[in-house]
Amino acid sequence: MSIPTLNVGIAGLGRLGKRHAEQLARHTPGACLVAACSPVTAELDWARSELGVGRCHGTLDALLADPDVDAVVLVTPTTLHADQTIACLRAGKHVFVEKPLSLDVATCEAVEAVAKEHPNLVAMVGFVRRFDPSYAEAKAAIDSGDLGKPFLVRSQTCDQNDESGFFVRFAGSSGGIFMDCSVHDIDLARWMLGNPKATRAFASGTIALHPALAEHGDVDNGMGIVEFEGGQRAVFYASRTMPHGHETTTEVIGTTGTLQVGMGAHLSRVQYRDACGVGHRALPDFFARFGDAFRLEMEAFVAACRGERPSPLTLNDATEATRIGQALTQSLRSGMPVAL
Amino acid sequence: MSIPTLNVGIAGLGRLGKRHAEQLARHTPGACLVAACSPVTAELDWARSELGVGRCHGTLDALLADPDVDAVVLVTPTTLHADQTIACLRAGKHVFVEKPLSLDVATCEAVEAVAKEHPNLVAMVGFVRRFDPSYAEAKAAIDSGDLGKPFLVRSQTCDQNDESGFFVRFAGSSGGIFMDCSVHDIDLARWMLGNPKATRAFASGTIALHPALAEHGDVDNGMGIVEFEGGQRAVFYASRTMPHGHETTTEVIGTTGTLQVGMGAHLSRVQYRDACGVGHRALPDFFARFGDAFRLEMEAFVAACRGERPSPLTLNDATEATRIGQALTQSLRSGMPVAL
Amino acid sequence: MSIPTLNVGIAGLGRLGKRHAEQLARHTPGACLVAACSPVTAELDWARSELGVGRCHGTLDALLADPDVDAVVLVTPTTLHADQTIACLRAGKHVFVEKPLSLDVATCEAVEAVAKEHPNLVAMVGFVRRFDPSYAEAKAAIDSGDLGKPFLVRSQTCDQNDESGFFVRFAGSSGGIFMDCSVHDIDLARWMLGNPKATRAFASGTIALHPALAEHGDVDNGMGIVEFEGGQRAVFYASRTMPHGHETTTEVIGTTGTLQVGMGAHLSRVQYRDACGVGHRALPDFFARFGDAFRLEMEAFVAACRGERPSPLTLNDATEATRIGQALTQSLRSGMPVAL
Amino acid sequence: MSIPTLNVGIAGLGRLGKRHAEQLARHTPGACLVAACSPVTAELDWARSELGVGRCHGTLDALLADPDVDAVVLVTPTTLHADQTIACLRAGKHVFVEKPLSLDVATCEAVEAVAKEHPNLVAMVGFVRRFDPSYAEAKAAIDSGDLGKPFLVRSQTCDQNDESGFFVRFAGSSGGIFMDCSVHDIDLARWMLGNPKATRAFASGTIALHPALAEHGDVDNGMGIVEFEGGQRAVFYASRTMPHGHETTTEVIGTTGTLQVGMGAHLSRVQYRDACGVGHRALPDFFARFGDAFRLEMEAFVAACRGERPSPLTLNDATEATRIGQALTQSLRSGMPVAL
Repeated sequence: MSIPTLNVGIAGLGRLGKRHAEQLARHTPGACLVAACSPVTAELDWARSELGVGRCHGTLDALLADPDVDAVVLVTPTTLHADQTIACLRAGKHVFVEKPLSLDVATCEAVEAVAKEHPNLVAMVGFVRRFDPSYAEAKAAIDSGDLGKPFLVRSQTCDQNDESGFFVRFAGSSGGIFMDCSVHDIDLARWMLGNPKATRAFASGTIALHPALAEHGDVDNGMGIVEFEGGQRAVFYASRTMPHGHETTTEVIGTTGTLQVGMGAHLSRVQYRDACGVGHRALPDFFARFGDAFRLEMEAFVAACRGERPSPLTLNDATEATRIGQALTQSLRSGMPVAL
Repeated sequence: MSIPTLNVGIAGLGRLGKRHAEQLARHTPGACLVAACSPVTAELDWARSELGVGRCHGTLDALLADPDVDAVVLVTPTTLHADQTIACLRAGKHVFVEKPLSLDVATCEAVEAVAKEHPNLVAMVGFVRRFDPSYAEAKAAIDSGDLGKPFLVRSQTCDQNDESGFFVRFAGSSGGIFMDCSVHDIDLARWMLGNPKATRAFASGTIALHPALAEHGDVDNGMGIVEFEGGQRAVFYASRTMPHGHETTTEVIGTTGTLQVGMGAHLSRVQYRDACGVGHRALPDFFARFGDAFRLEMEAFVAACRGERPSPLTLNDATEATRIGQALTQSLRSGMPVAL
Repeated sequence: MSIPTLNVGIAGLGRLGKRHAEQLARHTPGACLVAACSPVTAELDWARSELGVGRCHGTLDALLADPDVDAVVLVTPTTLHADQTIACLRAGKHVFVEKPLSLDVATCEAVEAVAKEHPNLVAMVGFVRRFDPSYAEAKAAIDSGDLGKPFLVRSQTCDQNDESGFFVRFAGSSGGIFMDCSVHDIDLARWMLGNPKATRAFASGTIALHPALAEHGDVDNGMGIVEFEGGQRAVFYASRTMPHGHETTTEVIGTTGTLQVGMGAHLSRVQYRDACGVGHRALPDFFARFGDAFRLEMEAFVAACRGERPSPLTLNDATEATRIGQALTQSLRSGMPVAL
Repeated sequence: MSIPTLNVGIAGLGRLGKRHAEQLARHTPGACLVAACSPVTAELDWARSELGVGRCHGTLDALLADPDVDAVVLVTPTTLHADQTIACLRAGKHVFVEKPLSLDVATCEAVEAVAKEHPNLVAMVGFVRRFDPSYAEAKAAIDSGDLGKPFLVRSQTCDQNDESGFFVRFAGSSGGIFMDCSVHDIDLARWMLGNPKATRAFASGTIALHPALAEHGDVDNGMGIVEFEGGQRAVFYASRTMPHGHETTTEVIGTTGTLQVGMGAHLSRVQYRDACGVGHRALPDFFARFGDAFRLEMEAFVAACRGERPSPLTLNDATEATRIGQALTQSLRSGMPVAL
C-alpha cells in the first residue's frame, strides 16, 4: 500500500479520549498515534506508558506546532470544540471533533466557513452511532428501498440512572438534555430521512429524579417532535433515569416497511430463566453499546484523511443537529413550538 | 346463584356489534341476549338465526320499550352515542356505549349529568384495552409499585394499511385520527398514571399514503405530547399505514422500572426461520389483538349491572379522553399547543 | 340450527375435570352439561351449585344408564380410562377420554377394537395441544408446504418444579415421565411429521431434585430420540424441575424452513425493565398455557358428536403415542435402544 | 511493558487461516506476525502484501527452523494437526492448533504425552466458542452459582445449507458431522458442566438434503445423547441444512436457573416489519457469529505464551472432545449406545 501512514495526535484523554486513543494506537489500520495533548499530567503518562505515545504536550498549540502530525482528534470539553477545530484547520491538520461541535448555531457556521477555506482537509464530527453496524445495516436497508418512503423516525437516547448525579453537576455546561443526548438522534433522523430541512420543533419534559436540574432549566426526561419540509416527522425521547441500563433505539417508519434498531438493550446473546421469569441483562452504558462503532469511526476518519474514502460526516451535519437541538431546547423552556 | 340473569339488548350489529352480540349470547355468564335492534334487516336476521335472539326491532325506541330488557349495549355510529345513552338511562336501562361517547366535551358532560340522575344504573364506556389481560397485568404491576412512580406513558394505536381506504371515506365523521385511534391510548395513559389532570396538548402529523384525508384536516400518521399536572407526560402515536399489521403498544416508564405491552404484534406463539430470516406473523387487526378483552369487557359490564363488581369505567373517563383527544386534534390543525 | 343440542355428562371433577366441566357448561356452543359423576360428594355439590348440573351420580354406571346423556367426557384416573371408554361405547355414548388412554399398548388396541364396533360413535382422546391456536397455525404452515419436507421434531414438556413433590407421590401410577409428559410431544411429532411409523426409541434421564423417584425407576428429567421410517427423527425432553415456569415448546425442522412454538413461555404481552434487566413473566403451568386449547378441544369434540366436523383425533393416535412412550420408558430402564 | 513481543508464525492461510493471520497482524496486543507458511504461493503473496509478513515459507519445517519464531498457529488440514503440533513442540515453539486435534483418541493422547515433555510451552486447541463474550458470560454465571447445579446441556451447531455441497466433498476426511460440528458443543458441554467424565453416548441421524453423504456413513442432521458420571447429561444437534443461516446455540439447565446462548441467530440489532411479518436477518455463518471470539482467542493464546494468563484450554480438552465425538460417530453407525 503506497498511501503513507497517517500520523495522528489526540487532544483530551478523559474517558472517551482514552477510548479513541486506544483505537488509534492499536486497532486503526493506516494510522499511528504519535502525539497527545492534555492539561492533566497523569493522562499523558498513561498515553506514554500504555500506548507508547512519544510526543506528549500540555497544550493543543504545542501539538499543532508539530509538523509530523497529520491529523488531530479532539475529545475536549464542548466549549472548546469550535475554536480548536478552527485552530487545527488553520494549522493544516485534518480534524475529528467530538459532538456537539458547538451549542451555538452561528459558531457552528463560523467553523464551517473556515473548513470551506481548507477544502483539502477533512473535518469530521463524531456522530458515532452512524458507524454502528446495526445502524449501518438500517441505513443500507432504507437506501435499497426496503421501507418504501421513510416518513417518520422515532429515536431515543436513554441512559441508566446515575445515582451519583454526575450529569447534574455538568448541567450548566452540557447544553441541556436535547443538546447532550438527543443530538445523536437528531443526526440519525436527518440521515435516515435523507437530510430534509427541519421547519419546526416542539419539546416537553419532566424531572423524575433529579430536582437540581430545575435551576439550569433542564430536565432528566425530555421528549420532542420535529417537523420537516415535505411532511416527514421525528419524535425524540431522551432520559437520564432508565432503571435497567442504556437503551438507545431508533425506529424508522416507511410506506412499505419499518425497522427498529436496538430494542431491548441486550448486553449479549445470553438469556436467563429463573424464579424471576425469563430475561436478559441490559447494556450498562453507551460504551458497551457502541464499542465497535468507536473503532469503525476512527477507521472512517483515518481512511478519509488518507483519501481512501470520502468523509461520511461533514461539519454541516453538526450545524444542522445543533440547529434542531437548540430549537428543542428553546421550545422546552418557552413551552411554544419554535420555527426553524 | 340468586342473582337473576341479566337480559340484554344490543343496538347496532355491524362488525363490532356482531362481536359483542356473540359474546353476550354464548360466552357471558349471567347474561342472556334477548333483544336486538338495527335498521338493517339482514343484521336482525343474523341475530335471530345465528344467536337465537327472539325480539328483533328496527329502532332503539322499540327496544327500550321492552320491559324485559335490563341493559342495552350500544354499538351504533359515534354521532348517536350520546343521545342514545341518555335515552337508555331515561328508560331505566343499564347502558354500555362504545367509544367515543361523543366528539364534543360538552355533550359528554351532558350525558354524565343525566347518568348522575340515575345512580342505580350502570353507564360504562367501551375502552376495551383496559380488559386485555396484558394491560390488566401491567396496571396491577404499577399499582403494586413495581415501577416506582410512573411518570411517562408512550402509547400507540397503529393499524395495518387498508388499501381500500375504508377509513378515508369515514374521515368526515370519525373525528380525526386522535379521536378515532388515540382515544384508547389517552384513556390508558390516564389509567396507568393515576388519572392526573391534563394541562396542555401538542400534536403534529403527516399524510404518508392517503392524500384525500387533507380535505378533512386529518392525517394518516399523528403524534402528540400531553402534559399533566405534577410533571407526568404522555407521548402518543397513531397510524393508519402500518405495513405489517396492527401494532398497539403501550410503554410505562417509572422511577424504578418500566414496562412495555404489545411490542412485536405477535399473532401467536409461533416463530419461523427461512430464507428470509427469523420472524413471526403479525396481528392483522384490533379484533385479533383484543378478542379476549372483548369477552372480558362484556363480563365486566354484566357483572356491574348485576351488582357483583363495580363498573371499572365511568362516563367521566370518556369525557376526559374526549377532552384530551380534542385538544390534540385542535393542536394538529392550529400548529400550536392547546391549554386544557 | 336444526342439529339438536348435545347432552354431555362428565366423569371426574378434579382440577382438569372442573376445567372441562366449566367449558361445557358455559362456553361450548351446541352442548349442554346435563350430568356429572364423581365419587366425591363435594365435587358433585360444586357441579350442582356452580354449573347448575341437574343429574349428579356417584358412579359412571349410573351416568351411562341415563338415556338423555349423548356423550361422556372422562377425566378420571389413568388406570380407569380404557375400561370406562369401553363402557361408554357399549352404552352407546360418544366418549372423550383424557390422555393417556392406557399405559399398555395391548389395552389401547382392545379399546380401539371396541370403538371399531361402534363406527357411529365418536371416540376421541385428549391431546389438547393440537387445539392450541399456535400449534394449529404450525400444522397449517407445514401442510401448506412452508417448511418443505419436515424431517425433525424437537419437542418438550417442561413443568415448573413443584416443591411439594406432588408428582413424586403419583410416580407409582403415572407411567413415568415419558408416558405422563412426553406423550403430548410424541403425539405432536407424529402429527407434524405426517404420522410416520416409529422404528426405534432410545432414552436417557437423570434425577436433578427428586431422589424419591429412583424407587419407581423414574427420573425428573428425561430425554429421548425416536427414529421413524423414511428417516424422520424426533428428540424429546421432559422435565419436572424448571425453575421459571411451564415451558412447553415444539420445533419442526424442514428442508426449506423451520418453526418454533412456545419458546420463552411468555405469560402475556408484557415486558419489564428494571435493575434485574429486561424480561417477562413465565407461564406457571399447563393450564395457563392451554386455556384456549381446552375450550377449543371441547368445541371440537362436541362438533364431532353432532356430525358437524370429523373428529380430529382417533383412539389410534392414543395407541401410537403409548407405543412410543412405552418404548422410551423401556429404553430409559434398560439403557438400550428399543425396536418398535 | 517489559514482556517482549511474541513473534508468531502461521501455518495455513485458507479462509480461517487468513482470519487468524489478520488478527495476529493487526489486532493482537503483544504479538507480531513475523512468518507464514503455506504450499500455496498466492496465499503467501497475500500475507506479504496485505499483512507485511516478511518471512514466507513453503513448508512448516522451514518455519520451525526460524529461531525468531516463538509460537506457531496451525490452521492446516485436520489430518496434519497432530504431527505438526508435535513438530512445533519439539522445535521449542508454543503452538495453537485448530480443532479437532485428531479424529483418533490415541493420537490425541500421543500429542498430549509430547506436550507433557515440554511443560514450558503452551499447547492450546482452538475451541473458539469458549472465547465468545456470550459464552464467557454464561460460564461466569454458572460459576457464580446462578443456575444452582447444572445438570443438562443442550447444544447445537447448525450451518446454513450450502447448495454447492462443499462439505459433501470433504465428507471423506471430515470425520463425520459429530467430529466436524458437534466437537464444539461437546467441548462446551464439558466446560459448562465442570468437566465430568462421559460414560455413554448414543446417536442417530438422517440425511435431509445430501444423499451423497451416505457413502461416507455420514448424515447431514445428527442428534446425540451423552451421559456423564454423576447423572449429568448432554443432548447435541448438528445440522448442515438450516434454511435461514447459522444458528449455534447452547442451553444449560440447572436446579435453580437455566440459560440460553445464541437463540435466534440475530445478525444485528435491527428488526424489520413488513408485509411478511416481523423479524430479523440471520447470521450467515460461523465467521459472522464468532468474529469477536476469533480475536479474543488469539489474544488469549498470545497472553498465555507471554506468561500473562494461564492457557484456558489444554490438549486434554481436545482429547476428551474427540473421545466423545468418536463415540457418537460410532453409535450413529452401529445404532447402539457406546460405552466410554
